[in-house]
Amino acid sequence: MPELRKDYVTDTWVVFSTVRSKRPGEFKFESRPTPPEKCPFCIGHEHMTPPEILAYRKEGAANSAGWWIRCVPNKYPALSVEGEVRRHVSQLFHSVNGVGAHEVIVETPDHDTPLPALSDFQVKEVIIAYKQRYLDLIKDKRFKYILIFKNHGEKAGASMSHPHSQLIATPIVPRRIMEEVNAATRFYEATGGACIWCEVVETELEEEKRIVSENDMFVSISPFAARFPFETWILPRAHETAFEDITDEERTPLARMLKDVLGRLYHILDDPPFNYYIHTAPCDRKESRYHWHLEITPRLTETAGFERGTGFYINPVMPEDAAQILQEGMKSEEKPH
Amino acid sequence: MPELRKDYVTDTWVVFSTVRSKRPGEFKFESRPTPPEKCPFCIGHEHMTPPEILAYRKEGAANSAGWWIRCVPNKYPALSVEGEVRRHVSQLFHSVNGVGAHEVIVETPDHDTPLPALSDFQVKEVIIAYKQRYLDLIKDKRFKYILIFKNHGEKAGASMSHPHSQLIATPIVPRRIMEEVNAATRFYEATGGACIWCEVVETELEEEKRIVSENDMFVSISPFAARFPFETWILPRAHETAFEDITDEERTPLARMLKDVLGRLYHILDDPPFNYYIHTAPCDRKESRYHWHLEITPRLTETAGFERGTGFYINPVMPEDAAQILQEGMKSEEKPH
Repeated sequence: MPELRKDYVTDTWVVFSTVRSKRPGEFKFESRPTPPEKCPFCIGHEHMTPPEILAYRKEGAANSAGWWIRCVPNKYPALSVEGEVRRHVSQLFHSVNGVGAHEVIVETPDHDTPLPALSDFQVKEVIIAYKQRYLDLIKDKRFKYILIFKNHGEKAGASMSHPHSQLIATPIVPRRIMEEVNAATRFYEATGGACIWCEVVETELEEEKRIVSENDMFVSISPFAARFPFETWILPRAHETAFEDITDEERTPLARMLKDVLGRLYHILDDPPFNYYIHTAPCDRKESRYHWHLEITPRLTETAGFERGTGFYINPVMPEDAAQILQEGMKSEEKPH
Repeated sequence: MPELRKDYVTDTWVVFSTVRSKRPGEFKFESRPTPPEKCPFCIGHEHMTPPEILAYRKEGAANSAGWWIRCVPNKYPALSVEGEVRRHVSQLFHSVNGVGAHEVIVETPDHDTPLPALSDFQVKEVIIAYKQRYLDLIKDKRFKYILIFKNHGEKAGASMSHPHSQLIATPIVPRRIMEEVNAATRFYEATGGACIWCEVVETELEEEKRIVSENDMFVSISPFAARFPFETWILPRAHETAFEDITDEERTPLARMLKDVLGRLYHILDDPPFNYYIHTAPCDRKESRYHWHLEITPRLTETAGFERGTGFYINPVMPEDAAQILQEGMKSEEKPH
C-alpha cells in the first residue's frame, strides 16, 4: 500500500509509491517511447491493460476493439483503490495510507495523432469521458480531490507516447488547491462577494495584452505571473465552480479552445513537451467560490536549486510576449499535421 | 530590469528575467558542458568573468591567477544589483522590480574535481566564502533573503560543469521560507517554546532509521517526507538560527559532513545530478525560531502533471530505504576519485 506523508514543517505532501522498487544502481527512472506493436493503448492490445472502466464504442464486447475512447486503471498506480483511509498524526509525523484512484483515459485509438490534431468530435468525447469519470469517482467518500492531467512528451514525464490523459483521486485536498480556495475566500470576503477568477477574466479581457484566444464560452490567457515560458490557462467566462458540471453546450467550445491552444503551442514551439491539468473544486462541493480552469505548462526550461530552495520560478519569457507570439502564430491558418 | 510578479491568486512568485530573450523557434533552453579551454572559472581565464567580488589567494593581483576560491557576479544575472526596490500592488497584479544580487562562488581552480573529492581544507574555504558573502550582502537593506545554492549536472540546471555554487539575494522573503517560519512559530507557540527542527534532530536520532551520518556538530537525515529519491538534509545539532553565524569550530565538521553525504550520493548513484541549498533565517534576523539547514536533492525522477497540478510529489524510494542504502554505501571506505 502506498503512503502519503507530510513534511515535518510545511504542508508539503509526498506520495511514496514503491511499486517498482529498485536496487541501488538502478535509480535512473527514465522512460522510453513505446512502439505501436508494444503499445497497450492501441486497438487490438486491450488485453495488455487491466480491464476497462469505461469505453465508448458502437458495438463489440468490453475489452475488445471498436472503441474510440477507453479508460483503464493505471497498471502501475501511484495510489491503491482498495481499503479505508487511515490517518496517523503525531507531533512531527503525519501520514495517510495511500488510498486513491489512478486511471488512464486513452484519447484516441490512433497511436500517433496528438490531441490538437484530433477532430472536434473526438476531443469533445475526451471531455465527456473526463466528466463521466469525475462524476463516478466523486461518489466515493474516501476521495477528497480528483485531478485530471495530461503528460505529453518524455521530458514532461510521459512514459507512453500514445495520446492519453490520467486521473488521480487523493484522500487529501492538494496544497495548491487549498491555497487557491483560501485566497479565493479572502478575496470574496474582502470584496463583498466577488470571484477572483471572474475578475481575472474580466480584467484580462479589458487589458487585452495577455489574451491568447477566446470564444463564446472560454478565454485563454498567458497569466500575469506565468511560471513557465508559454504557460497558458483556459477559463470559462461564466462563474462555474466545478469542471464536472460542464454543460452540453460548453463541450464543443471547450474542445475547440483546447485544440486551438495546443495547436498553437505545437506549431510555434515544434511539438514541445507539456503538462496540463484541470483545477476544479474539492469533492465536497462546498467551495462555491472556486472557478474551475485548465492550466497548460510547456516544459522548455529546467528548474534548479534556486527554484527548489525558494518556491519561486524563473521565467525567461514575459507573458505579454508569449501571448503575442501565440496570437500571431496561427494567422497563417496552419493546422497540426 | 528583471521583474518579480505574484500569481493572481496564490503566493507563487515568478522572476521574469529576459536577458537572453529569444525569437520563436529558439525556445529550447538547453545547456552544454563547457570544455576547460572555454571555461571562465578556470585559472588563467579570470578576464572571462566580471571583476571578482572576493577571492582567496596568497599573493598576486585581483582577477589574476593564484586563487583557490573566487566569487564573481553572475554574467547573466536573474536579478539586477542596481536601483531601488519599487513595489506595485493593485487588486490582481502584484509586482516588484527585480533588484537583487546574483553571484557565483567558484569552489576550486580544478575544472574536474567534484566537491566531495576536494580536501577538507578546500571545502571549509567554500563554507567561509559562503559566510563572508552572506555577511556582506545582509548589510544591504534592499535584500530580504539570501539563498546560497548549488546545481550539479546538466539535468540539475548547471550550465557550467566547473564546480561552483551560486548566491541570489531577493527583495522578498521566498514562500518556502515563509512557510517554514510560520510553521515554526506555530510549533513554538503550541509547545511553549520548542524549536521544530531541534525536535526533528532529537526524534530522528532516537528513531535511528532515517539517519544517514552524524558527527559532533551535525546530523544528516533522509527526511520523513523526502520529496525526491535520496533527498538528504544536514542540520546542526544545536539550535542555530542563521547559517552566517557558523562558528570557527563548526566549519570543519560541516565541511566533512557535506563531503561525506555528497560522496555517498556520488558513489551509490554514480555521480547523480543534484541541487543543494542552504535555508537560513530571513535577513532581518527577527526569526530566532528558525534553525538553519542544508537540503540536498538528487534529480533522478521527473515531476509531471500530477505534481504541477497538486503541489504534491511522488517519490518511489522510502526515506528509510534511502538512509539504509546511504549508510551501507560507505562501509567499503571508498572515496570519490
